[in-house]
Amino acid sequence: MAIGSTEMMIIMQEGATAEEVERVLELLSSAGVSGYVSTSDIATVIAVAGERDVIAGLPLEAYPGVDKVLPILKPYKLVSRDFRRSDTVITIGGSSVGGGHVALIAGPCSVETREQLMEAAAAAKAGGATMLRGGAYKPRTSPYAFQGLGVVGLEMLAEARAATGLPVVTELMDPRHLDAVATYSDVIQIGARNMQNFQLLSAVGQVDRPVLLKRGLAATIEELLMAAEYIVREGNERVILCERGIRTFETATRNTLDISAVPILKQRSHLPVVVDPSHAAGKVELVEPLSLAALAAGADGIMIEMHPHPEMALSDGAQSLDPEHFKRVAARIADMVRWVGKKLG
Amino acid sequence: MAIGSTEMMIIMQEGATAEEVERVLELLSSAGVSGYVSTSDIATVIAVAGERDVIAGLPLEAYPGVDKVLPILKPYKLVSRDFRRSDTVITIGGSSVGGGHVALIAGPCSVETREQLMEAAAAAKAGGATMLRGGAYKPRTSPYAFQGLGVVGLEMLAEARAATGLPVVTELMDPRHLDAVATYSDVIQIGARNMQNFQLLSAVGQVDRPVLLKRGLAATIEELLMAAEYIVREGNERVILCERGIRTFETATRNTLDISAVPILKQRSHLPVVVDPSHAAGKVELVEPLSLAALAAGADGIMIEMHPHPEMALSDGAQSLDPEHFKRVAARIADMVRWVGKKLG
Amino acid sequence: MAIGSTEMMIIMQEGATAEEVERVLELLSSAGVSGYVSTSDIATVIAVAGERDVIAGLPLEAYPGVDKVLPILKPYKLVSRDFRRSDTVITIGGSSVGGGHVALIAGPCSVETREQLMEAAAAAKAGGATMLRGGAYKPRTSPYAFQGLGVVGLEMLAEARAATGLPVVTELMDPRHLDAVATYSDVIQIGARNMQNFQLLSAVGQVDRPVLLKRGLAATIEELLMAAEYIVREGNERVILCERGIRTFETATRNTLDISAVPILKQRSHLPVVVDPSHAAGKVELVEPLSLAALAAGADGIMIEMHPHPEMALSDGAQSLDPEHFKRVAARIADMVRWVGKKLG
Amino acid sequence: MAIGSTEMMIIMQEGATAEEVERVLELLSSAGVSGYVSTSDIATVIAVAGERDVIAGLPLEAYPGVDKVLPILKPYKLVSRDFRRSDTVITIGGSSVGGGHVALIAGPCSVETREQLMEAAAAAKAGGATMLRGGAYKPRTSPYAFQGLGVVGLEMLAEARAATGLPVVTELMDPRHLDAVATYSDVIQIGARNMQNFQLLSAVGQVDRPVLLKRGLAATIEELLMAAEYIVREGNERVILCERGIRTFETATRNTLDISAVPILKQRSHLPVVVDPSHAAGKVELVEPLSLAALAAGADGIMIEMHPHPEMALSDGAQSLDPEHFKRVAARIADMVRWVGKKLG
Repeated sequence: MAIGSTEMMIIMQEGATAEEVERVLELLSSAGVSGYVSTSDIATVIAVAGERDVIAGLPLEAYPGVDKVLPILKPYKLVSRDFRRSDTVITIGGSSVGGGHVALIAGPCSVETREQLMEAAAAAKAGGATMLRGGAYKPRTSPYAFQGLGVVGLEMLAEARAATGLPVVTELMDPRHLDAVATYSDVIQIGARNMQNFQLLSAVGQVDRPVLLKRGLAATIEELLMAAEYIVREGNERVILCERGIRTFETATRNTLDISAVPILKQRSHLPVVVDPSHAAGKVELVEPLSLAALAAGADGIMIEMHPHPEMALSDGAQSLDPEHFKRVAARIADMVRWVGKKLG
Repeated sequence: MAIGSTEMMIIMQEGATAEEVERVLELLSSAGVSGYVSTSDIATVIAVAGERDVIAGLPLEAYPGVDKVLPILKPYKLVSRDFRRSDTVITIGGSSVGGGHVALIAGPCSVETREQLMEAAAAAKAGGATMLRGGAYKPRTSPYAFQGLGVVGLEMLAEARAATGLPVVTELMDPRHLDAVATYSDVIQIGARNMQNFQLLSAVGQVDRPVLLKRGLAATIEELLMAAEYIVREGNERVILCERGIRTFETATRNTLDISAVPILKQRSHLPVVVDPSHAAGKVELVEPLSLAALAAGADGIMIEMHPHPEMALSDGAQSLDPEHFKRVAARIADMVRWVGKKLG
Repeated sequence: MAIGSTEMMIIMQEGATAEEVERVLELLSSAGVSGYVSTSDIATVIAVAGERDVIAGLPLEAYPGVDKVLPILKPYKLVSRDFRRSDTVITIGGSSVGGGHVALIAGPCSVETREQLMEAAAAAKAGGATMLRGGAYKPRTSPYAFQGLGVVGLEMLAEARAATGLPVVTELMDPRHLDAVATYSDVIQIGARNMQNFQLLSAVGQVDRPVLLKRGLAATIEELLMAAEYIVREGNERVILCERGIRTFETATRNTLDISAVPILKQRSHLPVVVDPSHAAGKVELVEPLSLAALAAGADGIMIEMHPHPEMALSDGAQSLDPEHFKRVAARIADMVRWVGKKLG
Repeated sequence: MAIGSTEMMIIMQEGATAEEVERVLELLSSAGVSGYVSTSDIATVIAVAGERDVIAGLPLEAYPGVDKVLPILKPYKLVSRDFRRSDTVITIGGSSVGGGHVALIAGPCSVETREQLMEAAAAAKAGGATMLRGGAYKPRTSPYAFQGLGVVGLEMLAEARAATGLPVVTELMDPRHLDAVATYSDVIQIGARNMQNFQLLSAVGQVDRPVLLKRGLAATIEELLMAAEYIVREGNERVILCERGIRTFETATRNTLDISAVPILKQRSHLPVVVDPSHAAGKVELVEPLSLAALAAGADGIMIEMHPHPEMALSDGAQSLDPEHFKRVAARIADMVRWVGKKLG
């Protein structure tokens, strides 16, 4: 029987009537999916198989007699390890991420001036970074904070790439800027606050550019994978997942880096996983230990905020390394990459 | 002296040198803001006054000798109670919200069919609702779930308004849909997942339509007010704040309704505050107790999911009241509105 | 067949072998509980029935072929609404809590001096409180903070009861103090930090005194009920549950009052539910709105910190009402108690 | 002037009157501590110096005119890095933890039978563990779960120590069991649920046994250090801190391992820091990556649940390694210990 696989298990309440079971089966049938009833002396369970899209939309909890609805299969498919066993390797310019290749992405939070960016890019290159990061459009919690240079910033990023050969990662916040961002950058970043901006996800799913997708502050690992599924489903398979800390009650760090997310994402998905210790910790002195921990836990890349003059940064100065500090951290990262049996770039 | 008010207090480390204090003062001076040093035997503190926009961007934590940077003034201004002492009253069609007027907003999660919506609208009207809600664009965690009817749904909403006289609240997810949504609806909703979609906030700040702004799942009360500030700052002063639950470790409810947010928002801001018990709880049976609690705590409105046939809903069936249940809850709400000395609509 | 009810449902992995199913059944059988296999074309499910104590200890997740283990029945029994349909009413001195009776418990955080306590008790009585609270043993996060007066404080509480007729609620922190606390007080409070101090729970389960059990900062509603089960199981059926806020990322309040816990606890358990807005909010001005909200949501009591001179309090001064303020709040509470159709005491 | 250091900074509200400042100074003076007023054109700040114990108890927030009270010094002292710059090294039997020495603690969640424990102890020894863990008293969320063997279990632990030479770590839950636990074990564990059981902390502060103190599920890093201060202040300086995951919204792991706590604790305190990946993750397959991450981040030890037959364990079977798996993980741990330049034991 070509029934597809079980998507869902419905557990009926103790004492559910035959009529209530029948009404559930009618709903399934009217939706064109299959229900298989298993009854023992003490419980009735209905296994549901068929089109995932259809099953996901059924209002089963609202039916009388239904106790619990238990999804059996994961709510994502294309990004799952079951769908593709081997690691996805994404090659950008001359370097790669995933499948034994580790990315070291460094650069300032915001592109501020041409001088600042060129200096940062040179320091990133000198320290051994494999990609350059820098924001031209900045999501800022306060409307009174610096909002980024826009297209002018994108042009500077392209110039920095030309000067150093480093591919450029930059954030997209608005689907109306997609053309500009895709034109000037090598990897499009979706920020934590936009992880569930589904219009933006669909939009970047339709362009031929790798996407670095940051986990939302309150997003579960499963929701991150569902957000990635939005992108892949539109045709763009080159998605890099990024753990950058979640919001918890702890205030000693800006966010709580969920280090367990690294092995769990690697287990559940074939996509590469990068860690951003700068945003997670919000503190310069935690960047090195968290970078090493992330690699030890299996990360495919590290993304670090670095600024030629942190004390003059227009944003995130307190968490940006200076070039000298970056160089020291990058050397330790390179050592750890060797220890785990991988290679940089 | 026209110095404006103190925006920030910098506390220097014990043992900070005179030179370190000097460097901080130079930064302040180069940015055109004022610093006032207070030194006692045991500590040095610098009060900072001047343009809020400028001060917010200074990388003070990165300066040597700085121990803590303490914002004194709130990071929002136009939405604050200090800025306007009296409650903002927003009038939409014939009814109002804020300043003693309570809104009762009801309707289905999604617009599904013309019949479903017209039936829901009639039931909302009959139950005493003052506005109709319904989604034409739906943010869905899974890309495989129903995504909404789009413009066709907007047209149905306009038809339901014509039939019942109830103003219509509907969600905007993409700045590219702004014209359509503003044309067909009376209040534009910004959903929880887009609370920090700053492009969208700026966009709705520029139209002549009230905005219902939902608190993000991981957003603090302060961040909600800053998001509102984004809108008001663009010129649109008609913002309704909406508490709809935050994400915590508790799984007995879909989200944890932060009831304290109601009196705190009323204290800190002049904007009206609405509570959405349906999304907070995710359970039909909690809608009544949470609605009454919200009003008792000072809320200016209640927003309830109601569906003519919850067991057939394409989304949120488990948390939607049926018309009969809605009628009973609405009657209790009306009683409580009287008890707190306010009026519906 | 005297099988008892299904306690658990085991869902086998797709492709689990017959041998794997057999091994699980052997484990169940060796433990003396029953397993009922249901197999459809696409999934195998095992329903488990028998002694709850035994089933809870089985290491089923560690067995090969097992996909998920789903508890069907609640992990508590004696405190559940299924076990007893009618509300438990607890009568202490002349007043009651539960089943239409609302308690208003007021008094200082700590017993500090005889004068302070007698003044507080008189103000509680005058304002309409039905019980007096006051701590003789204080759990303090910092070892350098005031730790309470101990037995001397207990004696003062007994004196205050004699003077006012109000029953006394006080906290127990150490099983070695149980005799003293039980001798001098009418209700034994278990604080939030000790909610899972299982030795303490067992100890108070063996005395003839009602227990007020506070929810832990990170405890789920289910865990609170399991903690109550520890007490009831030892023979003490007079347990009052207390919601006092949970720890979340929000910092505007000391803790986040989980108002939804009130109707959920009332639904799942027959025990009375009291709300402590003082500890939840940590702010004097939130005590009134949160008290009213709690009653509107169905609470059976309110517990308020009140101090004759909050500005001199040795602990929790910032969240304690003064007698005048308490009187105003108590009057509103009395009004709301009438509105919900209940009576004070 | 022998004033001690500033403990606190009081920031007065804009517009606070001279009288309000005066009242605060009087309170300070009556408490025997010093206040130093700094006034600039725009703000008044009072620095407070004196006895920490006294200052911590002052109800300053309740005073009129006070805007914010900002503790300057940490609320702990004896455990802080400022108090002792060099790492505390704790030697137990022949092995050490802290200051370049890494502990590998392994063993079953609960002592179940003599055979099980002896087998586990032999496997721990063979795999390279430096200490043996095992619970004789078990904190269980459900009163219906296995509660431990008590003194009989302690005797078995002593026998396992005699057989293997491994020092024994076991949990204390009740001050009344202190003598027994101190007699039979080498390190006394305080579990996460008892981290703020202050009576228990004081009790173990008075015995001559090292204490392994686990972080509470909802405890901040600062609160963990304050709990350690409770112990050290009683005279017992040999405290080992243990990060074991905090409670967050993420459900993919049992708890969220807060990896950043490792470098932060090392920075703020001289005490050794151990990580328990088994309880944090709740999943066997995460033990290796999280152990390596913890060491890379600077941990002084790893604590792993291992059971000779996980599928027969009476508790935590799903997160216990079998001896073969433990041996593989221990070998990787040994490698990483070398990489970070430390030694096992």
